[in-house]
Parts: sequence; structure tokens; C-alpha cells
Amino acid sequence: MKVAVLGFGTVGKGVYEMLAHADGLEQGPVLVRPGKADEPWKISDINGIVSDVSVGAVAEVMGGVEPAFSYCAAALKAGKHVVTSNKALVAAKGIELAALAREHKAAFLFSAACGGGVPFLHNLSLAVLSDRIESLGGILNGTTNYMLDAMQRRGLDYASALADAQRLGYAEADPTADVSGLDALRKIMLGCAVGFGLLPVEGLDCEGIESFSAADAADLKKRGLCCRLLARGGKSASGVYAYVEPMALGASAAECSVLDNFNMARYRGVNSGDIIMIGQGAGRWPTASAVLRDLSCILRGERAMLGAGCVSGKADNSGCAHSYYVRLPAGYAGRLPVKEAWRDGGDARVITEPVSVADMHALAAELRGSGAGIFFAALED
Amino acid sequence: MKVAVLGFGTVGKGVYEMLAHADGLEQGPVLVRPGKADEPWKISDINGIVSDVSVGAVAEVMGGVEPAFSYCAAALKAGKHVVTSNKALVAAKGIELAALAREHKAAFLFSAACGGGVPFLHNLSLAVLSDRIESLGGILNGTTNYMLDAMQRRGLDYASALADAQRLGYAEADPTADVSGLDALRKIMLGCAVGFGLLPVEGLDCEGIESFSAADAADLKKRGLCCRLLARGGKSASGVYAYVEPMALGASAAECSVLDNFNMARYRGVNSGDIIMIGQGAGRWPTASAVLRDLSCILRGERAMLGAGCVSGKADNSGCAHSYYVRLPAGYAGRLPVKEAWRDGGDARVITEPVSVADMHALAAELRGSGAGIFFAALED
Repeated sequence: MKVAVLGFGTVGKGVYEMLAHADGLEQGPVLVRPGKADEPWKISDINGIVSDVSVGAVAEVMGGVEPAFSYCAAALKAGKHVVTSNKALVAAKGIELAALAREHKAAFLFSAACGGGVPFLHNLSLAVLSDRIESLGGILNGTTNYMLDAMQRRGLDYASALADAQRLGYAEADPTADVSGLDALRKIMLGCAVGFGLLPVEGLDCEGIESFSAADAADLKKRGLCCRLLARGGKSASGVYAYVEPMALGASAAECSVLDNFNMARYRGVNSGDIIMIGQGAGRWPTASAVLRDLSCILRGERAMLGAGCVSGKADNSGCAHSYYVRLPAGYAGRLPVKEAWRDGGDARVITEPVSVADMHALAAELRGSGAGIFFAALED
Repeated sequence: MKVAVLGFGTVGKGVYEMLAHADGLEQGPVLVRPGKADEPWKISDINGIVSDVSVGAVAEVMGGVEPAFSYCAAALKAGKHVVTSNKALVAAKGIELAALAREHKAAFLFSAACGGGVPFLHNLSLAVLSDRIESLGGILNGTTNYMLDAMQRRGLDYASALADAQRLGYAEADPTADVSGLDALRKIMLGCAVGFGLLPVEGLDCEGIESFSAADAADLKKRGLCCRLLARGGKSASGVYAYVEPMALGASAAECSVLDNFNMARYRGVNSGDIIMIGQGAGRWPTASAVLRDLSCILRGERAMLGAGCVSGKADNSGCAHSYYVRLPAGYAGRLPVKEAWRDGGDARVITEPVSVADMHALAAELRGSGAGIFFAALED
């Protein structure tokens, strides 16, 4: 099967090179920006790919919703299979693309959009056929895991950890999507779509790592805790819950052995129990290998990760509550159900009784609105 | 697809029940021992299954090489797909069964034979299509992991840990295959067959946990180490290496966060990097869920885990060497390249310079032949 590659950046170059050595796959044309088609196999007009009957599949690794969506839709309408690593695209337009794929008897797979090299969504989409998934999530953003690990193991401050991540190519020049938690949130949205048949687009709570300081890292360490950014989704009474927030775990927790830019994705099936997958969360070769794996799956007959009944809807986090570790201005500590509290300069550090996820995120937004700083991390149940 | 189940023990009952709820699958007849066919859907003659044209696939969960081999061969010859959880069968007859499956255009899959609920072999068989695997292995036996964990975290002695494992159904009445390392060895043989196209049946080294004592656990703990039984396979100059032995890891190693009866299987691809999968290594539902996942894969078009070129052959461990932690009678310490040694009653405890795997296992066999006790565990490189 000849595969056209849309985008020739870090991942696109990896996909193109791997195609030369993969069983049953071959290199097709590569879509590049106008003026960049400096090789006969590069092309800057998508129509040249869509109308090329020798192309059986398209690997979209451009990023962004447009023009990626239009290009993928055109490829599917032409009966070509589509594989993508683009979580923004799938979070925004996945259901639409899956429907187009079904209509035109083409495949639409997106393993590489969640977990980097980790074959999480592929296995989740298999598991739902015979098991019932109860919950899923994990460490789904390699950039923030690298930064948290650097701050905690190597004692770097936030700015140095970010600079390090940028120097190594783990963080982009504008790191907002990663450090704000948005990237992890998009991935848990995809997980919920595959695992529960509901793509939650509203009612989500999302806290990143932007408030995490070297002082927070040091204080957690003193208490035997380690901070990770966790994405969590699961079945709730009214549908699904889905949120992203820092979590403070005992140092022996499996999450704390996930270092550098690695990801750890997990799901719990009623029958399988917990299945945990760890691998590199980003980078040319891990991401390209996930794209290639999806293409191999197409050769084996796989067509869809989203079930025909998958719909978009609202997450309901109202049933989610846990104790939190919180650093906030001492005057605000009374807003929380304090279990234990101690002073740290003008701040209070608090261990709370259970607080609902929605309330905790709302309080943080309120404090920030009034110019106060706050860091919070969920504690293990 | 109607699925017949061969065997109605712990796993067979789980498979039969899960078939009632799985997409695209339905319950077929169940093969039981003569005289045990007390329900209309139970049958004690394999011919009744092989000749039943309504049966599309057979799930073999009886264990043992015979009669499982004859039954699976008959099913494949009748064009029925075969899925098995039986590592002894696949280690002894896998290549033959895979050839029969190809000849009769049927599937032969055996994810459940390695890693319990962990989808290791399935993902490995996908990865080889587009990546080159360098090494694989991990904690592949849940019984011994449960025992090691109980001895180290809860301070149990070997006999109590074994009794506990038996009480919980993790160890059989005769635990030899587990505690000797043979079960893990069979699994690494299957991993090499899938990952490298070579099923190693000779030249293997295998050490279990039978020599591990409470005193060993205490001494390792004092040094910040934790013992796990590791299976290791990989590419060597002349083919593959494959062996099983205890390993003493730093307490922060990912392996040490694998507790109870969990498994941790890993492979390293040139492009994907390390991919690690953790899940329950044994038990009715995790194993049944792996069988069901293979059946779902068949519906999606998957047919084989072993490539057509897979052959059986000899492992070559001669290139494998590392430092070891060894407890042996003090008089024998001079047989090892000692880096550090200390006395413990009549025994010496030694940290060695690098020793080849073959030499270490041979020395242990020699000492045991002369009635001396020895425990050894590889140290991290």
C-alpha cells in the first residue's frame, strides 16, 4: 500500500523514512508547503494526492485543525485510508472524520495522537470489543513529565526545566498547550471517545503545571511525595468524567518511576483489570512508529477506533472528589476543608478533606482572578 | 463467529462467560472430560467440535502439549481459527501449528500464553512489521513475582510466600514450572519467536527463585536492592540470546513497582524505543480477556503472530555478561571475579565483576551438584 505523507516536519520525516522498510507499505508523495517541493516526490497541492489512484492511504502529521481537516476529509471521500498523529484534529473533528471513513469504507486510525509511541488507543479500541472499560488515563504529556521530573530529581526551577525541555526538542517555542494541560486534556478526550463512545467537549476541568514551583517540589519531597500531571477519565452516573490535574503520589507509586519524557497510559477493564503501557511520549521515531503501526493495522484489516455510536457530549465531573495538597495565600486557607495545614512564609500549605474536582478547580480560578497564586495536586485515594 | 472452548477450568469458564457479551462472537460447544458433559452445550468428543461447521474458531485453554496439540491441529485442518493460552503447547509445537494455520487459511494466535492479561505478543507482532526489535522480556511470571514481593515487602519466608500464593490460586499444587523459571522461559521463547523469527529451544539458561531466602531478601533490602525474576531475550551476533534469572534492581527501578501477581513485559524497538506493558499476569479474567482480545483480532483480519520464516534453533548467550550479587559457601568465593565480598556466617556474599551468563549458571549447577547452596541475581548494567 502506497502511503502519502501530509507534512514533512519532525514526525513526517520519520514516517517517510520508516515507510521504506515496512512490510507491505511503500513511500508515496509527501505534501509540503508551496515553494518547498524541491524533490520529485514532494508536492504542494493536496489534489495531486487525492486524485492519485496509486495512493492507498494518507498519513497526516501536519498538526492543527485546518487545513488538516479538509485534507483528511478529501482523502477519505476519495476512499483513501487516513492515519493521523494530530490530537487537536481528532478532538475537534474526529467523529466527523470517522463517519466519513465509514461512509467511504476507508480506515481512520489515530494511535499516534495519544501516548506517542505507546499503543494505547489501539489496544483500548480492541479491549472495548470484549470487555467493559471502567476508567482510563495516566501521564499523557511527555513535555510536562520531563519538566516535573527535572524539577524534582534535579532540583531545577520551572524556567530552567522549561528551557531544558525546549533545548531537547521536547517543548515547543510556545509551550502553552503542554504546560496548561490542554494537550493532555485532548488526549483524555480521545481516550473517552474510544473507551466509552463519548467524546467529552464540555464540562471538562483542566489544570496544568504552570503554578508548580521549586519550593512546591521541595516540600512534596520532604513529605515523600512526587508530583505528576495526570489525565483521568471514566464512567460516571450520567456518562463520563474527564479532567487533568497534578497529582501528588507516594514515591513508590508506579507513576513516579515514569521519568524524563515518558508517558504512562492505563485503562481498567472489568475483566482485564489494570493494563498499563509506558513508552516515549514524543519525538520523531516513537511518534513515527505509532503512525506506522496504525498503517500495519490497516493492512491487517483494522478500520476504526471510534465506534459508529460515538457521540460528542458533556463530561460530568460532579461525582469526582479527593483530598488535595494545596499551597495558597494563608488568608484563603479557610475556603478549604482543612485536614492539616502549616505555614510557609505568607502562604499556607494544606492537606484537605475530600473536595470535588469542580470546586477545587473553581477555587483556583477565583484566586487567580484576584491575583493570588495557588498550586494544587490531588492526593491518592 | 461461534467459538468452541477446549477446557472448562479456571480460564475456560471465564472465556465461555465473556463470549456471551463480546461483539461479533458467540458461545459454541465446550469440550470437557468424558463423563463431565452435564449440559447440552458441553461435549466430550473433539470430533463433535471439529466436524461442526457452525464453529468458526476454537479457544484452547486445557494446558499441556497433548492432547491439546492434536485437537488444535485437527481444528486448523478443518479450517477453524485457533487461539490458545497454552505456552507449553506453543513453545513445543507453535511453528508446526502456525504452518498448519497458513496452509488452511486459518488464524493461530496466542497472546494469552505470555503476560496474562498484558497484550504483549499482539503488539510485538505488530511492531515487527515496521520496526526492528532489539531486545524484549521482563517479569513474565505472576506466581514468582507474588512470592518475591511477599518475601521482600511483607518479610515472609519462602515456604510461607508459596503457601500464600497457593491459597490465593496464584500457584498450583505443584509449583515447579513457576518457581524453577521454566514458565518464564517458555514465555521468552515465544517472545523471541514473535520478535526475532527464531524460537530458541536449546542453549537456554534458566534460574528460578527456589534458592531465594528470607536472609537474601533482608540483605538485598539493606543495600537498597529489590529482587525480581527477569526473562531476557534479544538479538545476538549469531542469532538470539534468551535466559531467565533473578535480578537485583535499585528500589526506584520500574520493575520494583510491579507488585503482587502483576507482569511487566517490555520490548525495545529501534524506532519506538522502550515499550513497557504492565498488567495482571494470571487469573481467570485477565487471561480470559487476552483470549477474547485475540478472537476480536481475528474478526478484524489478524491471522498470525509467527512469521512464515520463523524457525526453531539454538540460543547463543555467550555474549551476555554482567555483574552478579551472589550468596555461596565462603570456600567457593574464589571461583568468582570478586569486586566486593563480605561474610555472612559460613557463607560469603559477593558482588562480582562481569561474569558471562553461561558461566554463572554453570557454576551454580556445579555447586548444587556437590550439595552446596547458592543464590545469584544479576545486577543492573
